[in-house]
Amino acid sequence: MPNGFVSLVGAGPGDADHLTLGAFKTLESAQALLYDALVSEDILALAPDKCVKICVGKRGDRLSVSQDKTNALMVRLARKGLHVVRLKGGDPSVFGRVEEERDYLDQHAIDHKTLPGVTAASAAAAQFAFPLTHRGEARSVTFLTGRTKDGSIDLKDAAVSDPGVSLVFYMSSHNAAHIQAHLLAAGRDPHTPIVIVENAGRAYANALKGRLYDLATQVAEAAFEGPVLIGIGDAFRFARVEIQTALNSPGLPRHSADTFGKAFGTMR
Amino acid sequence: MPNGFVSLVGAGPGDADHLTLGAFKTLESAQALLYDALVSEDILALAPDKCVKICVGKRGDRLSVSQDKTNALMVRLARKGLHVVRLKGGDPSVFGRVEEERDYLDQHAIDHKTLPGVTAASAAAAQFAFPLTHRGEARSVTFLTGRTKDGSIDLKDAAVSDPGVSLVFYMSSHNAAHIQAHLLAAGRDPHTPIVIVENAGRAYANALKGRLYDLATQVAEAAFEGPVLIGIGDAFRFARVEIQTALNSPGLPRHSADTFGKAFGTMR
Repeated sequence: MPNGFVSLVGAGPGDADHLTLGAFKTLESAQALLYDALVSEDILALAPDKCVKICVGKRGDRLSVSQDKTNALMVRLARKGLHVVRLKGGDPSVFGRVEEERDYLDQHAIDHKTLPGVTAASAAAAQFAFPLTHRGEARSVTFLTGRTKDGSIDLKDAAVSDPGVSLVFYMSSHNAAHIQAHLLAAGRDPHTPIVIVENAGRAYANALKGRLYDLATQVAEAAFEGPVLIGIGDAFRFARVEIQTALNSPGLPRHSADTFGKAFGTMR
Repeated sequence: MPNGFVSLVGAGPGDADHLTLGAFKTLESAQALLYDALVSEDILALAPDKCVKICVGKRGDRLSVSQDKTNALMVRLARKGLHVVRLKGGDPSVFGRVEEERDYLDQHAIDHKTLPGVTAASAAAAQFAFPLTHRGEARSVTFLTGRTKDGSIDLKDAAVSDPGVSLVFYMSSHNAAHIQAHLLAAGRDPHTPIVIVENAGRAYANALKGRLYDLATQVAEAAFEGPVLIGIGDAFRFARVEIQTALNSPGLPRHSADTFGKAFGTMR
C-alpha cells in the first residue's frame, strides 16, 4: 500500500471564519484528523463523518499527548495510506512546532505539505481594532512566547526599550508578572500602552487595555482561563476595547464610533 | 439614506486559497470593492458581478491612488448606503495602514469592522517549509518593513545580533544592500541563514536561500519583480528551497523528502 500524506494545516485562531479556503478544502478530504485542543468544534465539524478524529493536545499546562506520540501517530496513519490532516491552532509556523513534525515526517519518508493560518495576533488586532504596526509610530512587530522551558524570557529576543516596537507575547498569562518586571527593568516606560486579549479570534473573546505598570495586576484580576495574548507598545493604544465580549464577531459590523471606549477608553 | 459600512478585509497573500471563510462571505455581499494592486484576480472574481471594483494601489514604487483619496472614496461610497469592502493584501494589521483608514472612518462616523488575513511571512513559511519560530533555537520572530520613508532602517527595531531571533523584512528588495550592511555592522554573523521569497503565497512564488553576506548580491541577481520578503536568522536554514517555482501550491502534496534541496540544499 502506498503511503498517504500529511497536511500540516493552520486552523487559525478560534472560529471557523478564520479558516482559509485552502484549509477548508483540505479538511474535506481528511481521512484522519489530529487536532490541537485549541481548534474549535465548528472547524472539526467540517471534516467528513468517516474521518478519524484524535485530539493530541496541547493547551497550556494541561495534560496532553506528547510531541513524540503525535509524530508517531502521524506516521502510523499515513502508512495506512490515509490523508492525515494535522490541524494546528493559529499559524503552524508561529510557535507551532511545525518544523519538528516536518522533520519527523521527512525522516520517515512521508510526503507532506504545510498550509498557513491566521495567527492569533492578527485576529486579536482585527477584533479589537488595533494595528500591529503603524506608519511612523510602530515600525515593527515581534511575536514572542511567554512560555519558555525554564520560565525565563530572554531580553535579547526583543528591542525592549523602544515603544515604537510592538511586542506580542503568546500564551503568556502565567508569565505576566515576569514580562512586566523584565520590560521595566530593561527601561520600557511604565506608561507604555498594553492590551490583554483572551480567546483571540473567537466570538467570546475578551480584551482589556492598560499600561505596562499595571500588567500583572490586570492579568491576575481578570483570571482568564482561555489562551491570552499580551501586546505591549504604542500601537496598542489604538485598541477599541470594552471590558465585555468583542462586539465585532466576523460577519457583523463593528460597533459604531460613538460607542467606543466606554469602559477603558481608547486612550487617544 | 442610512450610511452603509466598511469592511476592512485581509485578502491574505496571493491565491484565493489563503482567503479566510469570513473574508469570502464578506466579499459575497460587497457592493463596492476597493482593492490593493497585490490582490489577485481569482479573489476579485469572488465579488458579485454588480459590485463596483476600484484598484487603489499600492504596489512598490508604482503610481497609485493616495491614501487620502482612498479614505475619501471609502466614505463617499459608504454614504451612498453601500457595503464597501476595502480589500488589502495579507493581514491589514501588518504594514497595512489599517489604523489610518479606521481613524478616518471614525472621524466620519462610518461603521466598520476588520477581518484578519494570513500575513505574507506565514504564507512563505508554509510554502517553503521553514518555521518562523523554532523551539529552543528561534524564540521570537520580528516583522519589519524594508521600505521606510527615508530609506533607513532603525536598528532599535530589532534584536539584530542574536541569530535566535527571526527577522522578516517585508517589501524589502530595494533595501537589501542596506539591510545587509546594517545587520553586519550590528554584529550579525555573516553566515546567518537567509531566505528570499518573491510572490509569497502564490503558486508561482520563487525562493532562494543563502547567507547574510551574500544577501544583496542574491537579490540583485534574482531581479525579482514581485513583492519580496527577506528572512534572516537560524530558523531559515530549514527552508526547503529549490530555485524553481514552489512545488507545493495549496491543494497539492509537497514534493517528497528525497527531492529536497536539489539546487541550494537545505543546509542542515
